[in-house]
Amino acid sequence: MPAHPIDFLLLGNNFGTAEMREIWSEKNRLIQQIHVEVALALAEGELGVIPQQAALAIGELADADKLNMEEIAAAGAQMKHSLMPVLTALQQQCGTAGEYIHYGVTTQDIVDTATVLQLKQTLDVVARDSIAVANALKKLARDHQYTLMAGRTHGMQALPTTFGFKVAVWLDEFIRHLDRLAAIRPRLLTGNLSGAIGTYAALGEIGPEVERRALARLDLNSPTISWQSARDRFSEYASLAALISGSLGKIGNELYNLMRTEINEIEEPFSAGKIGSTTMPHKRNPAAIEGLASLTAPLLHSVALIQQSMHVEHERDAMSWRSEWIALPEISIYLSAQLQNALAILSGLTVNKVRMAANLQIQDGLLLSEKVLFEVGKKLGKQSAHRLIYDCAMQAFEQQLSFQTVLLAHPALATSISAEELCSWLDPANYLGCAPQKVDEVIRLAEQSGHLSPPETHVL
Amino acid sequence: MPAHPIDFLLLGNNFGTAEMREIWSEKNRLIQQIHVEVALALAEGELGVIPQQAALAIGELADADKLNMEEIAAAGAQMKHSLMPVLTALQQQCGTAGEYIHYGVTTQDIVDTATVLQLKQTLDVVARDSIAVANALKKLARDHQYTLMAGRTHGMQALPTTFGFKVAVWLDEFIRHLDRLAAIRPRLLTGNLSGAIGTYAALGEIGPEVERRALARLDLNSPTISWQSARDRFSEYASLAALISGSLGKIGNELYNLMRTEINEIEEPFSAGKIGSTTMPHKRNPAAIEGLASLTAPLLHSVALIQQSMHVEHERDAMSWRSEWIALPEISIYLSAQLQNALAILSGLTVNKVRMAANLQIQDGLLLSEKVLFEVGKKLGKQSAHRLIYDCAMQAFEQQLSFQTVLLAHPALATSISAEELCSWLDPANYLGCAPQKVDEVIRLAEQSGHLSPPETHVL
Amino acid sequence: MPAHPIDFLLLGNNFGTAEMREIWSEKNRLIQQIHVEVALALAEGELGVIPQQAALAIGELADADKLNMEEIAAAGAQMKHSLMPVLTALQQQCGTAGEYIHYGVTTQDIVDTATVLQLKQTLDVVARDSIAVANALKKLARDHQYTLMAGRTHGMQALPTTFGFKVAVWLDEFIRHLDRLAAIRPRLLTGNLSGAIGTYAALGEIGPEVERRALARLDLNSPTISWQSARDRFSEYASLAALISGSLGKIGNELYNLMRTEINEIEEPFSAGKIGSTTMPHKRNPAAIEGLASLTAPLLHSVALIQQSMHVEHERDAMSWRSEWIALPEISIYLSAQLQNALAILSGLTVNKVRMAANLQIQDGLLLSEKVLFEVGKKLGKQSAHRLIYDCAMQAFEQQLSFQTVLLAHPALATSISAEELCSWLDPANYLGCAPQKVDEVIRLAEQSGHLSPPETHVL
Amino acid sequence: MPAHPIDFLLLGNNFGTAEMREIWSEKNRLIQQIHVEVALALAEGELGVIPQQAALAIGELADADKLNMEEIAAAGAQMKHSLMPVLTALQQQCGTAGEYIHYGVTTQDIVDTATVLQLKQTLDVVARDSIAVANALKKLARDHQYTLMAGRTHGMQALPTTFGFKVAVWLDEFIRHLDRLAAIRPRLLTGNLSGAIGTYAALGEIGPEVERRALARLDLNSPTISWQSARDRFSEYASLAALISGSLGKIGNELYNLMRTEINEIEEPFSAGKIGSTTMPHKRNPAAIEGLASLTAPLLHSVALIQQSMHVEHERDAMSWRSEWIALPEISIYLSAQLQNALAILSGLTVNKVRMAANLQIQDGLLLSEKVLFEVGKKLGKQSAHRLIYDCAMQAFEQQLSFQTVLLAHPALATSISAEELCSWLDPANYLGCAPQKVDEVIRLAEQSGHLSPPETHVL
Repeated sequence: MPAHPIDFLLLGNNFGTAEMREIWSEKNRLIQQIHVEVALALAEGELGVIPQQAALAIGELADADKLNMEEIAAAGAQMKHSLMPVLTALQQQCGTAGEYIHYGVTTQDIVDTATVLQLKQTLDVVARDSIAVANALKKLARDHQYTLMAGRTHGMQALPTTFGFKVAVWLDEFIRHLDRLAAIRPRLLTGNLSGAIGTYAALGEIGPEVERRALARLDLNSPTISWQSARDRFSEYASLAALISGSLGKIGNELYNLMRTEINEIEEPFSAGKIGSTTMPHKRNPAAIEGLASLTAPLLHSVALIQQSMHVEHERDAMSWRSEWIALPEISIYLSAQLQNALAILSGLTVNKVRMAANLQIQDGLLLSEKVLFEVGKKLGKQSAHRLIYDCAMQAFEQQLSFQTVLLAHPALATSISAEELCSWLDPANYLGCAPQKVDEVIRLAEQSGHLSPPETHVL
Repeated sequence: MPAHPIDFLLLGNNFGTAEMREIWSEKNRLIQQIHVEVALALAEGELGVIPQQAALAIGELADADKLNMEEIAAAGAQMKHSLMPVLTALQQQCGTAGEYIHYGVTTQDIVDTATVLQLKQTLDVVARDSIAVANALKKLARDHQYTLMAGRTHGMQALPTTFGFKVAVWLDEFIRHLDRLAAIRPRLLTGNLSGAIGTYAALGEIGPEVERRALARLDLNSPTISWQSARDRFSEYASLAALISGSLGKIGNELYNLMRTEINEIEEPFSAGKIGSTTMPHKRNPAAIEGLASLTAPLLHSVALIQQSMHVEHERDAMSWRSEWIALPEISIYLSAQLQNALAILSGLTVNKVRMAANLQIQDGLLLSEKVLFEVGKKLGKQSAHRLIYDCAMQAFEQQLSFQTVLLAHPALATSISAEELCSWLDPANYLGCAPQKVDEVIRLAEQSGHLSPPETHVL
Repeated sequence: MPAHPIDFLLLGNNFGTAEMREIWSEKNRLIQQIHVEVALALAEGELGVIPQQAALAIGELADADKLNMEEIAAAGAQMKHSLMPVLTALQQQCGTAGEYIHYGVTTQDIVDTATVLQLKQTLDVVARDSIAVANALKKLARDHQYTLMAGRTHGMQALPTTFGFKVAVWLDEFIRHLDRLAAIRPRLLTGNLSGAIGTYAALGEIGPEVERRALARLDLNSPTISWQSARDRFSEYASLAALISGSLGKIGNELYNLMRTEINEIEEPFSAGKIGSTTMPHKRNPAAIEGLASLTAPLLHSVALIQQSMHVEHERDAMSWRSEWIALPEISIYLSAQLQNALAILSGLTVNKVRMAANLQIQDGLLLSEKVLFEVGKKLGKQSAHRLIYDCAMQAFEQQLSFQTVLLAHPALATSISAEELCSWLDPANYLGCAPQKVDEVIRLAEQSGHLSPPETHVL
Repeated sequence: MPAHPIDFLLLGNNFGTAEMREIWSEKNRLIQQIHVEVALALAEGELGVIPQQAALAIGELADADKLNMEEIAAAGAQMKHSLMPVLTALQQQCGTAGEYIHYGVTTQDIVDTATVLQLKQTLDVVARDSIAVANALKKLARDHQYTLMAGRTHGMQALPTTFGFKVAVWLDEFIRHLDRLAAIRPRLLTGNLSGAIGTYAALGEIGPEVERRALARLDLNSPTISWQSARDRFSEYASLAALISGSLGKIGNELYNLMRTEINEIEEPFSAGKIGSTTMPHKRNPAAIEGLASLTAPLLHSVALIQQSMHVEHERDAMSWRSEWIALPEISIYLSAQLQNALAILSGLTVNKVRMAANLQIQDGLLLSEKVLFEVGKKLGKQSAHRLIYDCAMQAFEQQLSFQTVLLAHPALATSISAEELCSWLDPANYLGCAPQKVDEVIRLAEQSGHLSPPETHVL
């Protein structure tokens, strides 16, 4: 039975989606490697590097589904090599044409290009789900454009805002992520088939053309020069995953805090039969939200690992390479769970408007101290107003009085402001600034960005 | 098929041993959880917290092997809880006694204590293999106590040393690791069964005694107070794994460098049929050594992850917890591969003494510049000697002359030193300092430490 | 002006204490290096390795305070070496005896041993402040042994506990940290003076005795064998700092959450004149608490850096070494701020008992669902009780009814429990389990540990 | 005296350049903050938010150079706030106009926007130096397009290549980095002046226009919506720094290995008076190269720290913020040293062509085993050839015979190949594949990219 939680029957879905696990499964890895070998053979056949007949035979006969993984694993243990036994098995499948498999390339060519094919599938999923999250955010921002709630800084209530404004900040972030996803795509989806040390020595002058045609068959770009020892593209993908996951983890943490018993402004989708605790029947835990929030930390550590693995020695080494083998699946799988999880939570979120409104009152007026400051400032000057309002606020806080009471009792104010004026200043709805307008603006630009419609992609 | 390389058929052994994967497998996780539930029931039966009969029935009937993992996984997906479906299945196994399973505790009690049981198995393996590595180092240090080779600093040859001295530094490190392993054992092997928030509320006054007896049955220590929200023990284990892995990675890197084509002083064990490259027949790569060196980086990132997860909110949360679920297996599994790999490499290492000796000569005497400096210093004063020898060394280097030639040609030296004297100063064997004696010293203290004999442990 | 925030005039105290900055200042670094050179010279004088007179002269004349840092820096830029210009300046100070400074050792011997001297000063401060924090925790645990508050899991109220119990968990952690501090001390405080590649080649057989005497003068242990290429001790120190900082960061985060406007159970010490916000006069932010919580993240990254730097090539290299130069001060300085900050916060903490009690009521009885479950379970069986209580809890939650009302209205309960019984079950004070007893137990063992009295140390 | 090595007199230049330290100095931080305050006041004056006269007075009187840092620091310690004392001092400078400083914004607006101004200066330096490095790489690639050397994989010689090809891979990487630098510039150089929680509440409807005009004066873009709680831009900058530093660290490591005594193919620029070792006069260490290689590790840890700090709570918090204060300077400063260091090394690099050629011969023909394989394969079929050549290679290796001798002695080859043919196959110059052509290609595309000419920027 598997030993990594990603592969656990009971827990696996906490750490990734079945779809993304499939992309990074050992089986799909092998399938993509065989796709690369076949594309290579066909390109070589076209160009007369190997007999055309042999190329066609390889294209027909090579079949990942018929490979015996256990036998290959046993042979690998003896050869102490991870690809060679696969090649041997493929050669047997292809009969006399087998001789021409893997002609003129090196193991890393095949493994790296197959990894790029897996990343292509991954990017499609990540883009599709990021778009879905962005659309869910758009809906939420629109629905709650005017839903009043407390804005908080340093964990303390600061000023009124709207829930839609909060969500619009997230939407704006996701539009930037979608920009970035589009930008890295051509750079990342670049294969490599350049031989033992990247010089095409075995194929000679025709090498780059073989590479170009084989990669075109796989719908990949060709590199300017071998990237066997230049791994920045993988780090760049990982860094972008870090940004997306950073946003998702932050959203998860925010919802976790808003769902606290004492705040109680939102609740994650609840389904009958869900158990919060084995011992406390009343518990309705933010289980999905915690799941969302929990995966950013491990993902970031995998990102840090892959950034370190840019450190390749000479023309290639197997040390940094192995870190990629670990980190790319981890990053992609954790991200898949976060995206799907966010989508489910955001789409089914309960927003407790009544409680949001009630929470705005718990400081008994202090929340609007800035508003009072600005209004009083217009009359008394900002500096004098700051000292005066600061003293009143501290007094209200220390003596647990209503802010209004303290202000009205202050001799310097009694004459210059009316209770009515003050009352209007202390109404949160009158102090939203441009929050609702900014929601409009963000949605407008999100729609203009062209990112919100799903691309036509075929995953797996 | 699994998606994490740890669980790959073809690659899994690069990342861990079968033995350690077994310890951290989902199956063993479940087995240990059931051990905890049974120990709890038996302790509660003894103390009359639950009926004695029920306790005995649970002890007899609860059986991990008979649980249907697929069914449990399906139930878990519906309940959105990872332990509840296991409990339900156990209850069914135990008939009427099932009512009394998991009495008075919370999910995290069971999961955490079962994790400690897995760590106990892990510690036994790590200690056993660290001892084996230490013994292999001891043999190598002894065998090569006098094997002359170049010491290098900043990648450049510096002074002569012996291979045994180099290895003795590693042995000394491992003795410290074994000290540390012994020291953390009692702290780490501490269970926890204290209920929903650690106060034993459900069991009341008898709670701590239930915990003590249940943990004693599992051969674990009892905590002073609940550690549901205090995870320093896991971080401490991880930190020690970081130290051991740090030593192993360094050894791997050192051997990798010593095996370079141009240095060629050691070779890793070679077995017939091993393939270095799919395209270059002559390649004999340091495949095992790279494997050894490659796992420190991912292990350190898992350590960093678990150190972050000390950040628990309130009495418990599920966010930091999940990082432990990921990091503890990763750390333990990577370390298992490194230890076994190191053992195989060190036990079968080819040490190329001839080449070591030859490499001492490639700077044509410059390697002994310090010796010459000290001897000349005795005659001319250290400062004057330093200037003079520095100039001669730079001249020899720039003009590619033998150091001896340059020195003998120097007017200030010609009169004060004889060619014979100089020749003896330039013999590396005469400038080993206390290298061989230190090898003796390290081995003597290693033996005195009592750490080199394997403990009597029964793993799994 | 300095560029690192640690050295900023306005912000520096957020990141470290003046005392710890002094220990890691460039000036103290130089002072300790000169201490090492002097101790070396005196030991060599005693043993006749250098003239006794010269040794005494060095002891008298070498004076860090008289060195011209600007001149040394300029010379260093030309020599491209960090210690050589210091040695040259020292030699000038010492006149003819200067010839005998730094005899038979290498730069790294001096730099590493001086670093250990800085770590000695650091350990004294860390131990002193950890003891002070432990004592503050002890007082707080004792004072609030019976202060009722809500225990929370997953951010949601779970069961009643006491504030003293929460603090006792932290105290228990600190006692373990003090154990660990005592354990690493002799290992960490080990110097190294073994020459160019650790073999004492320049000094020959007398080398280890020179080292032993010089280190004894510095009150440091001698190593079994050179650790120029074995840096586990520094990693071990860093790992322990990670544990302590992990506890402190967690405490900071906990207090941050308890101070939230909506929870409001504690407040950090407030001093008149403190400004929360430049624009919101009412803000009383958890500024000190955020400071405490904020430093664990950067500290952990410095720890991860130093763990990586165990990777030394051959007998020494300067790459990993430089990471230590960065990470050791960072870790020590961040930790100093956290410890002092924690001490100030814990000593002056306002605990809002009234609000703690009020918060226990906001779920209108649901907090005690486990208690009700166990009591009803005794009558109806645990499984049946769980279903029944779960349904009642969900109903109370969904319909915002008091738990008591729903329970009493349930037909299956109406006959079997009285309102009086139910009322007593719903009193939080009756469901504390062993919380207060555990506070006693933790304090008792803390006192027995011998760690709570400050050691007699003289820092700086 | 400063406590962080970045700020050390003797060591500081190892960790950063004076220019970049200046950008991130406390002084420049303050200067930029005042620029922001002034730009804000002028925009507000224009729009009538504050009196035009007051705005102009602020523009004239606010002067960073006249502020007394010690006094401000003392006031900050009392107010426990980092910006407030600066504002107070500014207000004093501006007389009656001082009242209108900082009108309608919050501390974080000023600090964040000033940080973006520092990043603007930083980006200019990074771009300038990256272009310079790219040009140095271009020259080196061109100069050594045909300089034969051994390509190495897994630390072992693999096939011949040219030094220019190796460098062209790096150049290709830098062109990608320059693409990325151009792409992030508009996103990163976006300020923020949106008030306490980002809603412009204090300024109301005119808020966004005030922000737009103030930022335009600072030559910064305006955000769609407040990014006080959305920090992805800083992470994105850090991630790009990680990529550039990853390339530089890899180059440093490569040069370090090529300079090893036993390889000796390059040497870093050497200047008279440079000291390699305090005790070994002959040492010419790769000091600059180690410096270059050593800074990637700390930089990556600062990147990981800032990626974590995307985790902002609610509308703002000070915890994640502080990580940015640490990480942004660290990243920028380490990168500055690496870029300048790389430039100096690459521009003055000694390339030892003779030794490169000699090293190609040390395997006595085995280096060309792939070439022999392909040629023999054409005659005997690839599979049969592989077995045969593999056996010959192993025999040559084990018995230390020349590959040519073994091949010619093989019965299966004796009849089919001539010694002359074989001799030509074993000539490294005949097996370069497309290495020189790819150098041309990379340089051609680099020139076409438009990135190699320095932009017209004025730093500081």
